[in-house]
Amino acid sequence: MLENSTICAVSTASGAAGVALIRISGDRAIAISEQVFIPKKAGKSLSSQKSHSLSFGRIMDGGKVLDEVLISVFRAPHSFTGEEVVEIACHGSLYIQQQITQLLIRHGARTAAAGEFTQRAFLNGRMDLAQAEAVADLIAAENAAAHQVAMQQMRGGFSEELQQLREQLLNFVSLLELELDFGEEEVEFADRSQLNELLTQLQAHINRLLQSFSLGNVIKNGVSVAIVGATNVGKSTLLNTLLGEERAIVSDIHGTTRDSIEDSITLNGVQFRFIDTAGLRHSAETIEQLGIARTYDKLRQAAIVLLVLDATRPETFAPVEEIQSRLNNNQHLIVLLNKTDATPIVSCQLSIVNFIAISAKHKEGLDQLIAALAAAVNLSPLSRNETVLTNARHYEALQRSAEALERVSEGVNSGLPGDLVAQDLREALHHLGAITGTITTDEILGAIFGRFCIGK
Amino acid sequence: MLENSTICAVSTASGAAGVALIRISGDRAIAISEQVFIPKKAGKSLSSQKSHSLSFGRIMDGGKVLDEVLISVFRAPHSFTGEEVVEIACHGSLYIQQQITQLLIRHGARTAAAGEFTQRAFLNGRMDLAQAEAVADLIAAENAAAHQVAMQQMRGGFSEELQQLREQLLNFVSLLELELDFGEEEVEFADRSQLNELLTQLQAHINRLLQSFSLGNVIKNGVSVAIVGATNVGKSTLLNTLLGEERAIVSDIHGTTRDSIEDSITLNGVQFRFIDTAGLRHSAETIEQLGIARTYDKLRQAAIVLLVLDATRPETFAPVEEIQSRLNNNQHLIVLLNKTDATPIVSCQLSIVNFIAISAKHKEGLDQLIAALAAAVNLSPLSRNETVLTNARHYEALQRSAEALERVSEGVNSGLPGDLVAQDLREALHHLGAITGTITTDEILGAIFGRFCIGK
Repeated sequence: MLENSTICAVSTASGAAGVALIRISGDRAIAISEQVFIPKKAGKSLSSQKSHSLSFGRIMDGGKVLDEVLISVFRAPHSFTGEEVVEIACHGSLYIQQQITQLLIRHGARTAAAGEFTQRAFLNGRMDLAQAEAVADLIAAENAAAHQVAMQQMRGGFSEELQQLREQLLNFVSLLELELDFGEEEVEFADRSQLNELLTQLQAHINRLLQSFSLGNVIKNGVSVAIVGATNVGKSTLLNTLLGEERAIVSDIHGTTRDSIEDSITLNGVQFRFIDTAGLRHSAETIEQLGIARTYDKLRQAAIVLLVLDATRPETFAPVEEIQSRLNNNQHLIVLLNKTDATPIVSCQLSIVNFIAISAKHKEGLDQLIAALAAAVNLSPLSRNETVLTNARHYEALQRSAEALERVSEGVNSGLPGDLVAQDLREALHHLGAITGTITTDEILGAIFGRFCIGK
Repeated sequence: MLENSTICAVSTASGAAGVALIRISGDRAIAISEQVFIPKKAGKSLSSQKSHSLSFGRIMDGGKVLDEVLISVFRAPHSFTGEEVVEIACHGSLYIQQQITQLLIRHGARTAAAGEFTQRAFLNGRMDLAQAEAVADLIAAENAAAHQVAMQQMRGGFSEELQQLREQLLNFVSLLELELDFGEEEVEFADRSQLNELLTQLQAHINRLLQSFSLGNVIKNGVSVAIVGATNVGKSTLLNTLLGEERAIVSDIHGTTRDSIEDSITLNGVQFRFIDTAGLRHSAETIEQLGIARTYDKLRQAAIVLLVLDATRPETFAPVEEIQSRLNNNQHLIVLLNKTDATPIVSCQLSIVNFIAISAKHKEGLDQLIAALAAAVNLSPLSRNETVLTNARHYEALQRSAEALERVSEGVNSGLPGDLVAQDLREALHHLGAITGTITTDEILGAIFGRFCIGK
């Protein structure tokens, strides 16, 4: 796995800019850089340069000056990768970035694969696997919540929690051995209750982590909100008003990312993505079944359904029951009674208790709506600084660990032989270890780091 | 002009990436950074950090960790701007870049205007104006020739040449004074011939620089090549073949920039941009005048016209004379006789001597075509490392300087009073000085640096 080639790549975003950073890591990072760099201060060679220092000079391609650059040197093991690392800050022209990279390759470096710098940091023990994965999440984080979760994981919060779980499991092993020893001598089973208590604690902890995954998903991918209702109830006006309000309220959070996001707002650092649906058509009192299958499809994918009714037209209330019946337990329904400015509310005809009266046009009732949207996502684990799972690989490993613990629990209580219980116990430990990379394979590493960007 | 606010901006390209660089410059750069940075090594504060050194630590927003970063410190005047400079290398998430920038602003920095770092470098005497302008050209350079010209200018080659011109002009002033002194005493006019010789030399030098501007334009903006000809002579096949050949030949030069360039190839580091034209329709022997006005419009804008004829259809030769008559002296015409694989060449019917026989389909004759394209651009000044003007502002200033020198020449030869000649002389000096910024105004600076990217 740990071959000692020297790798290089542009680590900054692609495009012309003031500055670009080219990173080189490996045994020969300094030697290769030295061959193409002439420091401004004569006699101040790179190989004699101290760790964590910068020097100014020229990158030479034969007799040709490619660029004037600043070079940083980081000596192993005090670098990101744990290897010798050189970083070249050059002018951010694509041509220069390309020419310098090619020059380094001609002098013996090779292009880094996606995530290879971070992978080396992991392989050299600079961080565990969960931390390395958090680096990619951190770079991709577009809002406060995703940033907080990734940062906590990168800084080792989750890894520490897993370490504690592993230690508790090892405690459990020693208790089990004790219990089994006593078991054959038929002593009181005081230890068994202690054993069960510890097991219950462990399972509760892992279950809490598993449950946090739905919040993690929301944080990472946003919350899908379908706006549904009969035609002409004011769905578009509502959406525009919401987006407009939001732009004013939280414009400091969005900034440059807004361009790539269509029809979404961020509340409490969580992105709400609005899904447009065709207006539900109705004939007399029953909803036309034709043509709304697609709307129901979108309903199924939404975490929150905003059902908009027109207070001035009771016939638009018709879909309420139909939609309620189609939602599952994990989906939230928020019923909005729109156009309450125009007419007295005809709530007597509305068979549901919970609705929010709004006027999308006159921007009334929006605070309650925004509060209801925010409340639909329980962010309290975040404010308590609890670990939130965002990674499907971690979820799967914890799930398997939980299953193994369940078998341990059954085994202990049904008096299964100690060695069989120990086998499940080892499996639970194994899956926890896989998260931080204590146990790992090339295949897993390839899958993890292949999703990184080049240069990280 | 030189207000002492501290400015900050992201200097790397926009987008999520491994690393982003945030640059801070000004009196309070270190003080502001210190307020938001906690070094990993306790007690190693930024204000005590040596110039050109790096330290690792956390950016804190109150109690919240925004990122783990590497901070470089450059002490005035040994920095790019000549001021105190701090560079924060953070994780390249847009969210983090934004949060850190906002944090710095809350602590007293302000967002840098486009080009403001380079402008400060100029105002602090770290580079002259021509060098500062070359920084922007260097960043925008997409090929070897543009890179070479910008690099030579940034490194002061052009500035040195201008300095020499100014010194020669000052020599001229002293000669003129001598000549005028003797003039009143009616001595021999030996000095006048010396004067004229120097003037001629100066004018020749400035003219050579002025003439290099057409090459400079080509280097900076590429060469426009219009492909014209009757319908069905193989224009599209030729273009595809050329692009395909080129992709194979110089794929190492294009790389990531290719995506943004449509239908262009790079030869000897110069970009050739192909302009598509509608096929010239013909009826019997004369070209239909209707509908081809637009093609002639495009012809007028092209530096090179590739006229494609079909060797198997002599009627496609008709446009040759018409097009020849429409081209001016600066435009190159290359006549291609296509489909020479299909039939014996009917060159007897072709009234022009110079044509290249090709078969676009069978990729024959393409080497000669590519050689002809390359030959149409005279790159010899580049290979002789001569200065090539690429900047319209410089061209204009040199033009005005040349005009003033012309008046000096006339004045000297017509016996104009010395003080009037001296006035034109001062004007010539003034315009040369404006290029390097010896004489400048806020307005000029605004126009120059406003075209830079933010963060440089």
